[in-house]
Amino acid sequence: MADPIFIRNGTILTMEADSSVIENGSLLIENGEIRALGPNGSMAMPSRARVIDAAGCVVMPGLVNCHTHLPMSLFRGLADDLPLDVWLFEHIFPAEAKEINPGSVQKWARHSCEELLLSGTTCCCDGYFHGDEVAGAALGAGIRIVAGQGIIDFPAPGVPDPKKNVATAVEFVHRWRGRSPLVMPSIFCHSPYTCSGATLVAAKQAARDLGVLFQIHGAETGAETSKIPECGGRSVVEYLDDLGIIDETTLLVHCVWIDDSDIAIIKKRGAGVAHCGESNMKLASGIAPVPGMMDAGIPLGLGTDGSASNNNLDLFQEMDMVSKLHRVACSDPGVMTAQQVVTLATLGGARALGLDRKIGSLTRGKRADIILVNLKKPHLVPVYNPFVSLVHGAKGSDVTHVMVAGRIRVENGKLTARDRL
Amino acid sequence: MADPIFIRNGTILTMEADSSVIENGSLLIENGEIRALGPNGSMAMPSRARVIDAAGCVVMPGLVNCHTHLPMSLFRGLADDLPLDVWLFEHIFPAEAKEINPGSVQKWARHSCEELLLSGTTCCCDGYFHGDEVAGAALGAGIRIVAGQGIIDFPAPGVPDPKKNVATAVEFVHRWRGRSPLVMPSIFCHSPYTCSGATLVAAKQAARDLGVLFQIHGAETGAETSKIPECGGRSVVEYLDDLGIIDETTLLVHCVWIDDSDIAIIKKRGAGVAHCGESNMKLASGIAPVPGMMDAGIPLGLGTDGSASNNNLDLFQEMDMVSKLHRVACSDPGVMTAQQVVTLATLGGARALGLDRKIGSLTRGKRADIILVNLKKPHLVPVYNPFVSLVHGAKGSDVTHVMVAGRIRVENGKLTARDRL
Repeated sequence: MADPIFIRNGTILTMEADSSVIENGSLLIENGEIRALGPNGSMAMPSRARVIDAAGCVVMPGLVNCHTHLPMSLFRGLADDLPLDVWLFEHIFPAEAKEINPGSVQKWARHSCEELLLSGTTCCCDGYFHGDEVAGAALGAGIRIVAGQGIIDFPAPGVPDPKKNVATAVEFVHRWRGRSPLVMPSIFCHSPYTCSGATLVAAKQAARDLGVLFQIHGAETGAETSKIPECGGRSVVEYLDDLGIIDETTLLVHCVWIDDSDIAIIKKRGAGVAHCGESNMKLASGIAPVPGMMDAGIPLGLGTDGSASNNNLDLFQEMDMVSKLHRVACSDPGVMTAQQVVTLATLGGARALGLDRKIGSLTRGKRADIILVNLKKPHLVPVYNPFVSLVHGAKGSDVTHVMVAGRIRVENGKLTARDRL
Repeated sequence: MADPIFIRNGTILTMEADSSVIENGSLLIENGEIRALGPNGSMAMPSRARVIDAAGCVVMPGLVNCHTHLPMSLFRGLADDLPLDVWLFEHIFPAEAKEINPGSVQKWARHSCEELLLSGTTCCCDGYFHGDEVAGAALGAGIRIVAGQGIIDFPAPGVPDPKKNVATAVEFVHRWRGRSPLVMPSIFCHSPYTCSGATLVAAKQAARDLGVLFQIHGAETGAETSKIPECGGRSVVEYLDDLGIIDETTLLVHCVWIDDSDIAIIKKRGAGVAHCGESNMKLASGIAPVPGMMDAGIPLGLGTDGSASNNNLDLFQEMDMVSKLHRVACSDPGVMTAQQVVTLATLGGARALGLDRKIGSLTRGKRADIILVNLKKPHLVPVYNPFVSLVHGAKGSDVTHVMVAGRIRVENGKLTARDRL
């Protein structure tokens, strides 16, 4: 059992529902959990505790990245400047057929996990193939992961026969359920335009039976409905809802091309949404109605998407981009406060993934997924409001310490010794 | 005289008109100038040269930030989430009246210069008050600067009597002309809505007589024309052009609310434009027609604007944001290539400031304003195209070395010893 950790002298952003801030605060971690937090002096420091001085730093929940394709860092910067369909079908899918195998997945998933940790993300929700290697890489790196085994209706890496795509995902979930508290297996249907209605229904039923998160890309581009023959005149959200796909254990990724009626469906069903602003901008897919989803109270988190369409996994940059994008898109600089944006990247993401009882805020009893951000750097001073500093000034490289379930993974900006690649 | 510097083993992005790239290249600096560049082995290394190994790094021109208000880092994060007019008139101007004096200007301008250098910018074009202190701070930090003394038709820091605003700027230019090759004095009229037509004409005439750059904010918000009684039914660009303000030694800052006819005027007159995409997004001012200005061949550079409306001075982040913004705004992921975006931040900016014979590209005989960017960091590998890596992956914190006129200002990511504050 690891020694307790005692963090002191920090500006603690709890990110609880009231987003309370504790100045000159301390936080005690025992057995991987947050045992106590409050102003300096409000709790005893165990004599054997490891002490971290957070003077000048923000102490906050680790960021939650609601949408990644970890192994795709291998394709970072490949075939840039292209629209989604050309990029995906003419470049990424062929590159995957050639270069993706268990070894490359293990290598680049691990690479991405390290990139995530170094930039302050402690939990990601991933969808890809060769799920065993992705989950194993995350476990090796010590990051928390919802690991989705991909389903698509044509031959895919590790799933040469698409008839076996659902069965392969089910087997993956069985192998990983209960194996580690850090790994939550999941089922990831690529999209309604690459999976038939029958596949979607079977995959969702399997996820429901197994009690795991069902992830799916949806309503990403304006042309998407035209690529789904079964859609008829319905919106993508209406189509998926009619299939019974959308419920409180579904994560809808993108939701760019949705209207108020779609938002009402998502809200009614209790599904979560992953907003991937940078990816949607880079692929010129469009601008998701994020303020509308926030107003509706949909569980909403941020995702970087894969490194091939971003091109990094830095959620600090994502927060900045998302805030600025929706300000200019809505002609309203007050459309979302910095505090709301930080909430999206922490507790909001945890809610979207159904993990908010475990992570997403600094709350007594939650798992100790915690980061420290150095606000003393030249580009961050002075600090009038720490939320504003984090959203509009900070970068992943300003993160000094990262812990997952109370284990320190990044210290002074460097990965702690692990079984490095 | 400083010893020569010999950089070797780098990927050299010349950013010359053809944007040629030299793999495994070397570059020799003597007397603050680029003496030679080419593949490794194509030139002799002087025996007394200081050697920099650029293996795994990009070697490129220092970035040119075409619009800053250096002392405003003091107000970074003050009064966020507000539209431009409320933010400016109700928060920033009052804060300036209270907190801006020669001492605070010197301190925060120096702070910003260090922030700029650390993030790879070697030249900035600034507009503020207390020009002596701004120029002095830049000289102390060793950054190249076009330093504009501000003109506005009401009492301003250091210029209590607005009747003396033009005379004050003229005196500033006289004091700094020829004093240092790094400091180019300039005249900065705040805007057509804070300066009368008479002031604008007098200031432009003075700048013309003195042979210095004339800078002005213009067409930043949709409401701007309604705040300029003299504008009549004209666009801001038409109004300024009718006053004779727009010529090849004028830098128009923002140009968000311009149409094709305005673009034609700017092109015809040969003026430069500073595009401040992040600031325009953050203040919800609008989206400038950057692709149209690029197509017209207007000398166009990027500016971060002041830290109060960004909130940092990192041009790498600006490049990423600008690229993604215009992709989604134009629904076209190919609207500008990464190479074009890097050009905006280097040679384009130098052209907009009228400095492209001196800086902006790695060309024999130009001043040695050079940066090295480490592409070996986890969030930047693999590299398929270095321009894409710089625009969509890199951050200012990936810059390892910065030199201005052949003097090393940043080494291994840290400022070299100077007279620190």
